[in-house]
Amino acid sequence: MGRPGKERPLTGSPHPPEDRASPSMSRRALLGGIGLAGAGAAIGSVTGGGGPGPFMASAGAATPPDQFIVPFYGTHQAGIATPAQDRLVFATLNVVDGADRTALRDLLSDWSDAAAKMTKGQLVGEDSDLDAPPLDTGEAVGSPVSGLTVTVGYGPSLFDERFGLAPKKPARLVDLPALPNEDLDPDYTGGDLCIQACSDDPLVAFHAVRNLARLGMGVVEHNWMELGFGRTSTTSTAEATPRNLLGFKDGTRNIKAQQTDLMADYVWVGKESDQPWMRNGSYLVARRIRMFIENWDRDYLGDQQNVIGRAKTSGAPLTGGTEFTNPKFTAKDDQGHLIIPADAHIRLASHEENGGTRLLRRGYSYTDGIDPVRGTLLGGLFFIAFMKDPSQFITLQQKLGTSDALNEYIQHTGSALFAVPPGVTRGRHWGDALFS
Amino acid sequence: MGRPGKERPLTGSPHPPEDRASPSMSRRALLGGIGLAGAGAAIGSVTGGGGPGPFMASAGAATPPDQFIVPFYGTHQAGIATPAQDRLVFATLNVVDGADRTALRDLLSDWSDAAAKMTKGQLVGEDSDLDAPPLDTGEAVGSPVSGLTVTVGYGPSLFDERFGLAPKKPARLVDLPALPNEDLDPDYTGGDLCIQACSDDPLVAFHAVRNLARLGMGVVEHNWMELGFGRTSTTSTAEATPRNLLGFKDGTRNIKAQQTDLMADYVWVGKESDQPWMRNGSYLVARRIRMFIENWDRDYLGDQQNVIGRAKTSGAPLTGGTEFTNPKFTAKDDQGHLIIPADAHIRLASHEENGGTRLLRRGYSYTDGIDPVRGTLLGGLFFIAFMKDPSQFITLQQKLGTSDALNEYIQHTGSALFAVPPGVTRGRHWGDALFS
Repeated sequence: MGRPGKERPLTGSPHPPEDRASPSMSRRALLGGIGLAGAGAAIGSVTGGGGPGPFMASAGAATPPDQFIVPFYGTHQAGIATPAQDRLVFATLNVVDGADRTALRDLLSDWSDAAAKMTKGQLVGEDSDLDAPPLDTGEAVGSPVSGLTVTVGYGPSLFDERFGLAPKKPARLVDLPALPNEDLDPDYTGGDLCIQACSDDPLVAFHAVRNLARLGMGVVEHNWMELGFGRTSTTSTAEATPRNLLGFKDGTRNIKAQQTDLMADYVWVGKESDQPWMRNGSYLVARRIRMFIENWDRDYLGDQQNVIGRAKTSGAPLTGGTEFTNPKFTAKDDQGHLIIPADAHIRLASHEENGGTRLLRRGYSYTDGIDPVRGTLLGGLFFIAFMKDPSQFITLQQKLGTSDALNEYIQHTGSALFAVPPGVTRGRHWGDALFS
Repeated sequence: MGRPGKERPLTGSPHPPEDRASPSMSRRALLGGIGLAGAGAAIGSVTGGGGPGPFMASAGAATPPDQFIVPFYGTHQAGIATPAQDRLVFATLNVVDGADRTALRDLLSDWSDAAAKMTKGQLVGEDSDLDAPPLDTGEAVGSPVSGLTVTVGYGPSLFDERFGLAPKKPARLVDLPALPNEDLDPDYTGGDLCIQACSDDPLVAFHAVRNLARLGMGVVEHNWMELGFGRTSTTSTAEATPRNLLGFKDGTRNIKAQQTDLMADYVWVGKESDQPWMRNGSYLVARRIRMFIENWDRDYLGDQQNVIGRAKTSGAPLTGGTEFTNPKFTAKDDQGHLIIPADAHIRLASHEENGGTRLLRRGYSYTDGIDPVRGTLLGGLFFIAFMKDPSQFITLQQKLGTSDALNEYIQHTGSALFAVPPGVTRGRHWGDALFS
């Protein structure tokens, strides 16, 4: 759901380039003597960089409160503990052949600067030169920034011999092993770098990824990308639990950002890291999980509830109470059978049955349209989770992939792991810790 | 942009099935003697069918105003003159072998009833039977209905020999001819039926398509589907003009719903139709238009503006003024060159240069991720337009596809045409006019 009233336009300077009585002439002008000075005469309002610009004024919207900007600078990167925005664009990129260590470092600096601008509603760059490509691609001009966050990560492959980063590779950043119930599509697997862009407006998230990729032309190229159209996890106690495409509430027992002890214990990398540059960072596991939606939809309601371990509508555990009542995993009926079945998803995923292990999930529903052969819906859960050690996910998924009753209805078809560096302070850049 | 404060939950009965002290027992209960009576005890609020249900209450949101429900019943189908919602799910389906005329007619009745419910925030169906598949797939429970509209159309192929509909085929409903600058993917072309679901919440639109397809199991199967993540056309004078992925405002000169004379002249089928059942209907042309985004992003700002014929940021025509100033297509510079180039998009698409012809565009930006071979963004414009005669589009596209400067950056990769029947009154169904 949207956040009513919390809007802020993505805009640049008070006067967009082509609306100025331009000191530079267009190529057409140079060729034909035509100026564009009259084009923007009607736009007269001037505001400072911090307030809404003329685009928003032209849209007739109310002045938006600033609090819907998520701060870019901080101890941790935004987009992890940030209350999950409604939409996601998740992209992975590879460094192209020939790009070297310096190019990579410079790119990470450029990306930080660009992300700092975009996340407060500014353009990537402003120019008045008609004889050059626009610095910003422009599609988000006039759109509220809608809580945009941009989060980057480094894949295991970034630490190979190409950039001299092997000594900086965290011991925990190992390629994910083969896991049960996966059939990975190489077109949706791996990547040297990732960009997680989240916003309540998917156009704003798309714009962020597109412009970062564009800044990286000659250094990086796209690997794969997925759009998440609906969040499936709550990461804040202030938000209602959303539903995934199974129709069930998802994330009821997720770590909430307000639980700072759990964040420290399970999400943020601490002093224990062999690589000091990763402190206050995290690890991101992405799994593209296809759901066999039509099969699920043919299942009985009672069976669906037993597969998950919860009542479908209320989200309460089958052992009773309300959504946030703790499940009673040991409770049995009169016949001595477990009320929450032994292979129920919430049991196998629970911290009670996994030595206390938890993840911060931050996933989204996705769709890729229709399977042209089978005529079934292509889509499911684009699972994203943050953790202080990827072994947390590996251990959980080895159990879930083997025993979860849900496996009849899902399959993991894409996968990637990234080391997410810590946040930066003003004047510093994403690559600084890694390259220092 | 969202519509702050206008939210209404998609919900069903006050008491969801599994929250009742259920008279029916789950299959597990039948096998093991376990009831679920305790699961929902904490949900006690009861509201009428017209107000917000218990799900919204549990989400803690304010009471939403009813006006954000788009009426389902009316002279015309909703989703045409309706101010364009932010998100789209567009699906085409084919009737399966063996399904007959009666099955098709019944399906259209079921679809109307289901759409009438979903568009006012109700479930497709309610049940308390744990031993049957749920009637509604449930993922939108708790989500505001967000202006959902569901619009159906009939493809030319529906009027072949299978259902005895050949005598009902409108003369205007011809297969689109081969058009310039297209390279159609058969996986994104045609369809016996289409469903256009629009909502400010993509999960709500997805839910609508999924549930209609599910109601049609055994009668129809999915053909193709595309999700549109950002609207690109204004269809109301009350809305700001959004931008497409070229970064330009799109739809400035679109017909607005308030222009009832233009709607009558160019959008709604009138008495002139050879098929009376199509009166107050329209024709829907869908074109999946890939944009070569990286090529566009390398082009100079001045060139981009000449390709379109407008200033990028303000949207004003190159002949000056503001966004809504009429372009001066005949204006020339001192050298005698046209200021809006001869091959500019807005010139070739203009009603001035097409004998007055206009369309009601209602398109959305889409993305399918990354081209795995070229490493470029897959995406562009999912063009939808409504018109009283498909020849309006054919004439325009023959010109645009041949001469438009934009052709260097776009290609049509999917296509379909549908006859959109008129709206229905309460108690009537979509198929009634066609089958009467």
